[in-house]
Amino acid sequence: MSSSIRILTSRCVASAGRRHLAATLSRPAASPRLGLASPGTASSIGVPSSFAAARLQSTTAAPEDAVPTGPKVKAPALVYISGEEMTHYATQLLLKEWIEPHFDTSSWETYDLSCKSRDETSDQVLHDAVEAGKRVGAIFKEPTITPSAVQVQEMGLKQAWGSPNGAMRKGWNGITISRDTIHIEGIELGYKNQVLFERHAVGGEYGAGWDEVGQGTLLTTYIPQDGGAPFVVDKRDLTDKHNVCVVYHNPYDNVRELAKIFFERCLEHQVTPYIVTKKTVFKWQEGFWATMKKVFDDEYKDEFLKQGLLDRSGGDLQHLISDAATMQLIRWTDGGFGMAAHNYDGDMLTDQIAQVHRSPGFITSNLVGRNDDGSYIKEFEASHGTVTDLWLDHLAGKETSLNPLGLVEALLGAMSHAARLELDEKPNDKNVQEMHAFVDNFQSTLRTALHNTFRYGQGTRDMCGPTGFTTEDFIAKVAWRLNRYLAQQVEEQAPPELKEGDLAVPKEKLAEFDQKAILKLFEKYDKDGSGKIDFKEFSKMLMKMGVAPKKAPKEGLFSSPPGTRTVASSRPASGSGSCTSGYRPRSSSRQRCRTRRSSSAPRTE
Amino acid sequence: MSSSIRILTSRCVASAGRRHLAATLSRPAASPRLGLASPGTASSIGVPSSFAAARLQSTTAAPEDAVPTGPKVKAPALVYISGEEMTHYATQLLLKEWIEPHFDTSSWETYDLSCKSRDETSDQVLHDAVEAGKRVGAIFKEPTITPSAVQVQEMGLKQAWGSPNGAMRKGWNGITISRDTIHIEGIELGYKNQVLFERHAVGGEYGAGWDEVGQGTLLTTYIPQDGGAPFVVDKRDLTDKHNVCVVYHNPYDNVRELAKIFFERCLEHQVTPYIVTKKTVFKWQEGFWATMKKVFDDEYKDEFLKQGLLDRSGGDLQHLISDAATMQLIRWTDGGFGMAAHNYDGDMLTDQIAQVHRSPGFITSNLVGRNDDGSYIKEFEASHGTVTDLWLDHLAGKETSLNPLGLVEALLGAMSHAARLELDEKPNDKNVQEMHAFVDNFQSTLRTALHNTFRYGQGTRDMCGPTGFTTEDFIAKVAWRLNRYLAQQVEEQAPPELKEGDLAVPKEKLAEFDQKAILKLFEKYDKDGSGKIDFKEFSKMLMKMGVAPKKAPKEGLFSSPPGTRTVASSRPASGSGSCTSGYRPRSSSRQRCRTRRSSSAPRTE
Repeated sequence: MSSSIRILTSRCVASAGRRHLAATLSRPAASPRLGLASPGTASSIGVPSSFAAARLQSTTAAPEDAVPTGPKVKAPALVYISGEEMTHYATQLLLKEWIEPHFDTSSWETYDLSCKSRDETSDQVLHDAVEAGKRVGAIFKEPTITPSAVQVQEMGLKQAWGSPNGAMRKGWNGITISRDTIHIEGIELGYKNQVLFERHAVGGEYGAGWDEVGQGTLLTTYIPQDGGAPFVVDKRDLTDKHNVCVVYHNPYDNVRELAKIFFERCLEHQVTPYIVTKKTVFKWQEGFWATMKKVFDDEYKDEFLKQGLLDRSGGDLQHLISDAATMQLIRWTDGGFGMAAHNYDGDMLTDQIAQVHRSPGFITSNLVGRNDDGSYIKEFEASHGTVTDLWLDHLAGKETSLNPLGLVEALLGAMSHAARLELDEKPNDKNVQEMHAFVDNFQSTLRTALHNTFRYGQGTRDMCGPTGFTTEDFIAKVAWRLNRYLAQQVEEQAPPELKEGDLAVPKEKLAEFDQKAILKLFEKYDKDGSGKIDFKEFSKMLMKMGVAPKKAPKEGLFSSPPGTRTVASSRPASGSGSCTSGYRPRSSSRQRCRTRRSSSAPRTE
Repeated sequence: MSSSIRILTSRCVASAGRRHLAATLSRPAASPRLGLASPGTASSIGVPSSFAAARLQSTTAAPEDAVPTGPKVKAPALVYISGEEMTHYATQLLLKEWIEPHFDTSSWETYDLSCKSRDETSDQVLHDAVEAGKRVGAIFKEPTITPSAVQVQEMGLKQAWGSPNGAMRKGWNGITISRDTIHIEGIELGYKNQVLFERHAVGGEYGAGWDEVGQGTLLTTYIPQDGGAPFVVDKRDLTDKHNVCVVYHNPYDNVRELAKIFFERCLEHQVTPYIVTKKTVFKWQEGFWATMKKVFDDEYKDEFLKQGLLDRSGGDLQHLISDAATMQLIRWTDGGFGMAAHNYDGDMLTDQIAQVHRSPGFITSNLVGRNDDGSYIKEFEASHGTVTDLWLDHLAGKETSLNPLGLVEALLGAMSHAARLELDEKPNDKNVQEMHAFVDNFQSTLRTALHNTFRYGQGTRDMCGPTGFTTEDFIAKVAWRLNRYLAQQVEEQAPPELKEGDLAVPKEKLAEFDQKAILKLFEKYDKDGSGKIDFKEFSKMLMKMGVAPKKAPKEGLFSSPPGTRTVASSRPASGSGSCTSGYRPRSSSRQRCRTRRSSSAPRTE
């Protein structure tokens, strides 16, 4: 596989590189407050953080000008729902500058949900997108327009195509809409630490039946499926001349799953969970709380206690009345909490969170559903719209400055989930493991590049004022920084530490040899001084030394002293595929095995 | 009437005094921002502001130590619903120190809605209170406790008596719950200018019918009262094993009234109106918006345009989606706007407003209903609870520092509305006019005393930090300031300006007399040098001058020069009740007429 060729860092190398990078990148005064919660959503996807990969080793340019030139990693399959206006333009730009230089995105399926496309296909494209999302499981969605009556006329549409949300929530068995605050490390927004939110994705007035009626009686009857006797749920006299009556139901079967998703995310992000309802007055909401509490007590309470996450909530899961929650959202600006709520309460409260945290540009919106095979379908989108005003400016040739943070977090979230799904499907496939690790490292590096660009005052104008960068300049500056950081990870990583087990020849045995003489021999046969002996040199050497294999080959050992970056295989390339090499870092053997066809010389690590 | 005896300021005198007071009281750096909206709720009751009265004229103490000693004004009838814990204690204290020295509150009807009282009367006291509120029309309510299961046990109650709100809203035909920000002039809280809110007092999920059901079908049918054919409002299949189904209705007949109350209050407080619904998704809410918009267009739009109140809203009444409203409430901290919303949205949004504006202590909660005779029933309460923690401190002998602003605004609101109702009933009754004017002046003076106490750093600790005053000291300090300000209004008011029409003797005729000689004569007969000639002196004088009436009396004129404070009746007290006096301020004739029995000498004004 092409992707595996370019991934050559070992676990220990990547870790060392990451530690180094972290030290390098923290030059702007780091805020200690932000240490608690890891920023962004992608880290909520469940990507292990102890693994990373870098693929810029093939560049010969200095890190500052690093532009990746090697073959690209094949991005995991996802469904890309494109929208329109400014956010579509910006997404196209950042895909081109940030993603496509590093990834082969040919496995992505794109569905155009612009008004025009929906109109031309009579909304078949929406059904196709939902179907594809169900099949693939990872979806990135750009903001779309739900056309108003005026827009229907302006765009000459056949009809006012409604919001695609309902079809998506239904098609993907929506459980929750997760909406979390996005943070820029080192810059204070509204909440100091992360706030998580689970909004029940189904039920409530969104699916209500209703009518406008006069005086009379409204009778609601339930007819059980099991043949039991029907009974009256509600009978009311309407005495006003003008009434609207409303009927809805909350399906609660997936509340257990909602609970698990919520509590696991709270643990992962180290925040204190709260359940929000109006059950003190709306008594029927008691069941929501009861289920959440039971799941918590049965499966999570001990872990939350152990991790000290209930210290601020009296040692237990707390219930908050919804109107009191509107107040706490303003008071608890330290963040570090999560809330789970019904559909409409979640709608209200998450918009409030967005505003407390500066704007909807700093909050995620991820629909989580469940596929028939039990895997999660996750759709990631920005919380904001298509940003029409900037689009009109752009069309008029004016400068714009769109902050793409919400778009990027959604895109990285979708890519991470896509990588996760592939890994879940093929947990033992090394190529998939490497791809997953590459995506993991890429997303955290891109996030660092983004955040530091803001911190160096090169952010968009919503954050950096009138001297901030334009949409295009910001994306270019982040691209430059991203490439530099990725190159740095390769350049500045520590050389491998060789341990006893890595040596084919035991230490005691090594002591028998004259290391200096061996080096001298090596340099003699390394004709081009590349630090590597190619097959031609190697063959000549063996012959000159009289150890070239004939009928009965003798053993020949060649090595560079420990600490140099060049190692040589202990055995000649035999074409047999065997790969028991000599002095080598343990976990890079795999890569070297696969590079056997290019030459026997391993790549610089 | 006793109250009328003590009210003697004329319109012009009171106006002068008020101007002077305003200048005197603005010593702490006044914030120009607060000029736009008048703080507090009481000003929303419709009390005319061009009239005021002071009743401290009978005190002989210096203003700084002024304690009113004269007879009290009979307070207008209201229903006083008492509660418990800290807020009951504080209300009792402020009634004693601020209200009772100035008002005879014997017309107030008190209903004790403490848990104990409701339990002992099996809640008859609640029904009585509702009945009384309907009859009287003005209600002040202290915070009450809706006992939890634990409290039922602790207090040994027969049952868990529910919130009294439902009974009140129903009994008083609740239209709206008005919740406005309370401001302290010169101190910045959350919103710079006032925010008004109308929350529809009926409908929504508060009166929902519901049940918890399994799989099956839910069928809702409407049966018209007029004999029309029943039809199905909603039929839904429930596929989950665990569902709750919910049925409610919004009665819309009183939305027209809600609209009028809202728009009139917006005009009065000079704020921009917004209507908040979720009608983009909850289509049945369209009727709420449509009614509000129609009332606005038909009756109010021109006036709002003329007053420039639609400048910030594009020249028209604007609709806000409810979740967007949660964001604007955080962004629009300049205030100066009003919102009207459905019941539950109002519940959520007003609590958010309370928190943005600092705490529920700085927001009002006034239920407005309509009586059968068309008059408004208004119930005023603080937005906060009984403040249990401070109550426990108080019981333990610890210092407390309760900010009573919300309680006072509710009390003043109820008193103002009570005065308004009496005036509406007897618009031509001078006594009622005077009482109304006195209440009006009293409430604005008390508000100034309160605000200035905060501004002098003598406020409660929530505002002034640990050096702030205790509950008791704060109430005492405000009482001292209130008395001083009221006394000042009397002391420092300008003397009356006499005009041509006030003179019984035309100016030309006055010129015929030797003013100096007249003054000399006056001083001769003003034996005790009091500036007044009492009946004994007067009688002697007439006899000495030989003009004492016998069978055929001659005319005698005595006057002090214009500008002195003492004037004498041009005619002797005849006991006939006629009141065509000589040199006198025009509009004080009424008072002097009524004081004829005490002596012929008018009181110092």
